Amino acid sequence: MHWRNVPPTLFITLQLTLVHWCISMFFASDNWAGAHSKIAERLLAESGGFATAYGLSDLDQKVEAKFSEIFEREVAVFFVATGSAANSLSLASVQKPGGITFCHSEAHVAEDECGSPDFFSSARLATVKGAAGKIDPQALAAKIARFPQDAVHHGRAAAVTITQATEIGTVYSLDEIDAVASVAKANGLPLHMDGARFANALVALAASPAEMTWKRGVDILSFGGTKNGCWCAEAIVFFDPEKAKEMHFIRKRAAQLFSKSRFIAAQFDGYFQDGLWLDLARHSNGMADRLRAGIEKTRGARLAWPTISNEVFAIIPKSASKAAEDKGAKFYEWPIPESQPDLVGDDETLIRLVTSFATTEADVANFLACLG
Amino acid sequence: MHWRNVPPTLFITLQLTLVHWCISMFFASDNWAGAHSKIAERLLAESGGFATAYGLSDLDQKVEAKFSEIFEREVAVFFVATGSAANSLSLASVQKPGGITFCHSEAHVAEDECGSPDFFSSARLATVKGAAGKIDPQALAAKIARFPQDAVHHGRAAAVTITQATEIGTVYSLDEIDAVASVAKANGLPLHMDGARFANALVALAASPAEMTWKRGVDILSFGGTKNGCWCAEAIVFFDPEKAKEMHFIRKRAAQLFSKSRFIAAQFDGYFQDGLWLDLARHSNGMADRLRAGIEKTRGARLAWPTISNEVFAIIPKSASKAAEDKGAKFYEWPIPESQPDLVGDDETLIRLVTSFATTEADVANFLACLG
Amino acid sequence: MHWRNVPPTLFITLQLTLVHWCISMFFASDNWAGAHSKIAERLLAESGGFATAYGLSDLDQKVEAKFSEIFEREVAVFFVATGSAANSLSLASVQKPGGITFCHSEAHVAEDECGSPDFFSSARLATVKGAAGKIDPQALAAKIARFPQDAVHHGRAAAVTITQATEIGTVYSLDEIDAVASVAKANGLPLHMDGARFANALVALAASPAEMTWKRGVDILSFGGTKNGCWCAEAIVFFDPEKAKEMHFIRKRAAQLFSKSRFIAAQFDGYFQDGLWLDLARHSNGMADRLRAGIEKTRGARLAWPTISNEVFAIIPKSASKAAEDKGAKFYEWPIPESQPDLVGDDETLIRLVTSFATTEADVANFLACLG
Amino acid sequence: MHWRNVPPTLFITLQLTLVHWCISMFFASDNWAGAHSKIAERLLAESGGFATAYGLSDLDQKVEAKFSEIFEREVAVFFVATGSAANSLSLASVQKPGGITFCHSEAHVAEDECGSPDFFSSARLATVKGAAGKIDPQALAAKIARFPQDAVHHGRAAAVTITQATEIGTVYSLDEIDAVASVAKANGLPLHMDGARFANALVALAASPAEMTWKRGVDILSFGGTKNGCWCAEAIVFFDPEKAKEMHFIRKRAAQLFSKSRFIAAQFDGYFQDGLWLDLARHSNGMADRLRAGIEKTRGARLAWPTISNEVFAIIPKSASKAAEDKGAKFYEWPIPESQPDLVGDDETLIRLVTSFATTEADVANFLACLG
Repeated sequence: MHWRNVPPTLFITLQLTLVHWCISMFFASDNWAGAHSKIAERLLAESGGFATAYGLSDLDQKVEAKFSEIFEREVAVFFVATGSAANSLSLASVQKPGGITFCHSEAHVAEDECGSPDFFSSARLATVKGAAGKIDPQALAAKIARFPQDAVHHGRAAAVTITQATEIGTVYSLDEIDAVASVAKANGLPLHMDGARFANALVALAASPAEMTWKRGVDILSFGGTKNGCWCAEAIVFFDPEKAKEMHFIRKRAAQLFSKSRFIAAQFDGYFQDGLWLDLARHSNGMADRLRAGIEKTRGARLAWPTISNEVFAIIPKSASKAAEDKGAKFYEWPIPESQPDLVGDDETLIRLVTSFATTEADVANFLACLG
Repeated sequence: MHWRNVPPTLFITLQLTLVHWCISMFFASDNWAGAHSKIAERLLAESGGFATAYGLSDLDQKVEAKFSEIFEREVAVFFVATGSAANSLSLASVQKPGGITFCHSEAHVAEDECGSPDFFSSARLATVKGAAGKIDPQALAAKIARFPQDAVHHGRAAAVTITQATEIGTVYSLDEIDAVASVAKANGLPLHMDGARFANALVALAASPAEMTWKRGVDILSFGGTKNGCWCAEAIVFFDPEKAKEMHFIRKRAAQLFSKSRFIAAQFDGYFQDGLWLDLARHSNGMADRLRAGIEKTRGARLAWPTISNEVFAIIPKSASKAAEDKGAKFYEWPIPESQPDLVGDDETLIRLVTSFATTEADVANFLACLG
Repeated sequence: MHWRNVPPTLFITLQLTLVHWCISMFFASDNWAGAHSKIAERLLAESGGFATAYGLSDLDQKVEAKFSEIFEREVAVFFVATGSAANSLSLASVQKPGGITFCHSEAHVAEDECGSPDFFSSARLATVKGAAGKIDPQALAAKIARFPQDAVHHGRAAAVTITQATEIGTVYSLDEIDAVASVAKANGLPLHMDGARFANALVALAASPAEMTWKRGVDILSFGGTKNGCWCAEAIVFFDPEKAKEMHFIRKRAAQLFSKSRFIAAQFDGYFQDGLWLDLARHSNGMADRLRAGIEKTRGARLAWPTISNEVFAIIPKSASKAAEDKGAKFYEWPIPESQPDLVGDDETLIRLVTSFATTEADVANFLACLG
Repeated sequence: MHWRNVPPTLFITLQLTLVHWCISMFFASDNWAGAHSKIAERLLAESGGFATAYGLSDLDQKVEAKFSEIFEREVAVFFVATGSAANSLSLASVQKPGGITFCHSEAHVAEDECGSPDFFSSARLATVKGAAGKIDPQALAAKIARFPQDAVHHGRAAAVTITQATEIGTVYSLDEIDAVASVAKANGLPLHMDGARFANALVALAASPAEMTWKRGVDILSFGGTKNGCWCAEAIVFFDPEKAKEMHFIRKRAAQLFSKSRFIAAQFDGYFQDGLWLDLARHSNGMADRLRAGIEKTRGARLAWPTISNEVFAIIPKSASKAAEDKGAKFYEWPIPESQPDLVGDDETLIRLVTSFATTEADVANFLACLG
């Protein structure tokens, strides 16, 4: 069953049966994990005392300064509740009437946010093709050319967004980001990066945050902490604070301004402490790599796309998928991309396996044992 | 300075100076407090393990069941990020093209949510007068009569919302809720209750949750936990689950569906445990009552409105306000309601003092000492 | 029955009975008249040949140039379908997230456009008091002061709109426009004028179009021709063409860009020819003045507000209203403004009588005879 | 130059040069024609007298009844200003939060309405492939299957819209409409038809209006008169009047309710009189067929798609295109569909030629002479 159409009632049934399994094999998503102990404890430690509400506390300021330090320039930071909020409000801030945002045809903003980016910006997404989940720069240029700035009827190009890491776990190289950014800049368009799995991409590239963003031409970043060990820690980062002024109102009007904003700040404070965030990402990427290696050795199984960050997409026999589910493994079947209709054979299925900071070597071994 | 127009930069300055004060006198808002230790610890305890994301975990289910138990009927529950989200999405779910939501002229939805309810429902608010921050039922009936269901030009009545406790800390009696509900029902309109300070109102009335809501005709409730000791715990409660079906999509499209939803569930779990929520509300109401009593005894000071829950609105000499600020007290001047232009004398100011679960008797005494 | 809540089915019945009356007494609205013969003939004359669509024909350009000539400066002109569209899109073009538009409490934008201005601008209206249907400048200043530019929670002032002539037929003097404009400018807000009855106001003041608009500080004008003898001719006029650039997209996205735009242009061409528009307005104002004089002489009848343009608001006995209706007079009862609850006695009713280019002296005499 | 990106200033220049050409060769669009004399005269004849405003006049009622007669069942009819409005409001009336409207990848709603359908319904379009500008039913079924009703993240299927005649001048056969409708119905989705060129399709099929719409499963129709000889006459037709109730408010809020609505009614009255509308469509289709025949005989020219209604898409040498332009022919180059990247050779261009009620045999002959 594809995860996107699992009816809530079925989910409940699944859930109720879960508790009977003693062997942990949770690969459904990195957001099935809880919070890393250091982050949870940092939050606990913050719970006393009083502080200014609505993002203006000492701790909020400290964490914003930490963002500037991490990105090696002064940035404007806005905490929001979800990755969808970060993406949608980022894109809303650069939209205009009749404007179009360009994204990959399998991007999260297009596939998994229930139209939130369109809703908040009263605008449309136009999808662009590209191998391995990444926008092809030439296809982007051709697509943008269909929406010139004078095109009252057709609509006009307004923004470009990329996902790093991508929806299928691949990662744009620095050169690939440059190539997309060049097309965006040549057309006068701002470039947004959906970094729900920012840390996973970062450690995969062994790049610095600055190198992977504004040094490549990224203007606005959705910086996600939730999938990498926080409870709920998402931020919009503007690399040019001058362009961030409207966001105060956009966020409040979107009902995304937390009163006790320091509960987000505290999580980020723990997240950044001693490079914890990078350690956690390295761990989950490593677990994914271990899974990848095991699958490549499994007869009848193969990878759909390269494993670069913390997601493994495998094509396995339907029988193997059922067997693994029967043994308690949690994962989702994944929809076949429209661009690759022949990806999977009749007796096969495409599955997504996501590792997280909480995945253990035993989890991986147990899962591979199910398949074998 | 009115709190609504404090510029961010000033806030920061204020904040930086705060740390020098050793005496805690934080009455700016109940959302300046952190999280109660039992709630924070409950959250910490939940951080391990894996669970289904997006509101479908065991714990989410358990807490939803707990809501049904508390309200003595099956309810549908939706966690969201903020009180504004709870209000705006609740109202969006019952809006219609050209529809009008009726609220008190000083309601939070009208005054303090940056247009969020209008934005999410593409609809308008119409304000209704009433003493002590409460909608006058006759004024409501008269106002609704101006927006009949056939009125294509003028717009049509669509919903009524009340705030319990109100923005000025008063509380609708059960009979008063009945009276508003009668008008709503007579006009076929759903009734929403903004319960950002639900617990404070509840213990003030010594009523049960059911008695204060659906037994009075309330259809949808914004149930707030944040102001009463949680970090971030807001829920939309539908008393008729049949009417909640669209909310799944409304919430997701609004970017308000948490992936690790159990971090909200865990807070509510702690909040409800052994009646903690009611104890906390009783405490803050008690502290407010103590403040009230002190102010009534203070020469030159008087109450603007009765103190019923955890907010005290006092009219004091400007000199006293300045003196208290100089001594480190944190509170906001409050805008004079348009309906009471002569409330405050030339040398006076209207201040709001909010108590919370974390307010101590010493805080109150210290503050009163500043005034005296 | 108030016109705003006449159900469609009743309207039909009313309409079917109309045809039996031989004496024309149509005072329901100036938009019950058809089109003036010169305008209708100008449209007929244009019907042949081919021309560029979407507002780019020779005739469109000619008429735009005519607007510039009439207003004594270069203006940008956008034809739209309705007065509501002109108002809503004008206001949308100057709105911002969390922004507020200030209007009179009985303004057409607030009372009679089904929320269209709010819908198109995702923003709110805040109403301001003032005698005789006109914004009181001091009340405006006080209201704006409640919405400072930093007020993230409360929302921020974004625009001011006035109606000229007003909803109750009065007219801002040039000084009165100046006074409102001063407040707007002092707060950095653009000023919009809803000129659905622009010509009626203009001839009442014996002012030039420039004197009544940009020379007073008006930035954007809804210029109406429909109520004064056109079929359908409404235009948005920007006095600073630089600020009009987004309107091309705002209008198209609002589905208000006519393909055969020259059918609007042709009407305006006839409308402006030899000052026809001013003659028509003078005629309807004159008919209103004649009605006014008759009512002042009628026992038991009196004026609710001064008659300045082409609308007469009279307070008459309910019996007289019924008698007039029985004799076939068409007019609407008008809702009692909330600000004047005691305007009308128990046995009385407030009626609105609107004259148009097509109203004759005989119509007026016939109507007065009904009352007498 | 593609017509979609013609900058306004260039248009003006084009236009100014037009007047020097004595030979009429206007094939840019059917909306470059004016109004047919019988329709223009009918409008003139209606200009006198008074009538109820806002769509409730005798004539409005009569024309609505005429629609019911033409469609052989009781229908609800709503006049609006533009074809974009008809489409956008129709689709808005059946949308829901997170909903998706399915359309052909080259549909007018997707390509030429500046995002208006998305804007009014706060929803998204998903495009479906299909040869000859027509939705492929199997591709539709596969696409819909990606958006199940439980899919909170992905969005859910909400409506299907087809264009008849299509954007490339082809026409769905009755069986083809059946096939699309079957897929829509099997998924519980309403079916909308964009009939901007309804009459042209109708006469091409020699079908009755009922046969081409509700008898095939069409629920809502955008019925266009503007392109076929009216000035401005567009209507939304609901085949189930029960489902039309919200449209009164949707239309008014969209600022699309005409006050002097009978100016639309009068045009439709003339349009329908003695089958004029069908005669006009037959004429323009006939002229297109004559063009087609000529092009097929022209060396170096060929058709891109079959000519079924009043649009001819021809692939001609760039040199021929330039020659025709130099001789004063007005037409647009057309963008190469993304699905047919190899449609046109390097030295060729794709042009669109649209005929109208006003096209003459001489126009066609003159144009063909330019090419030859």
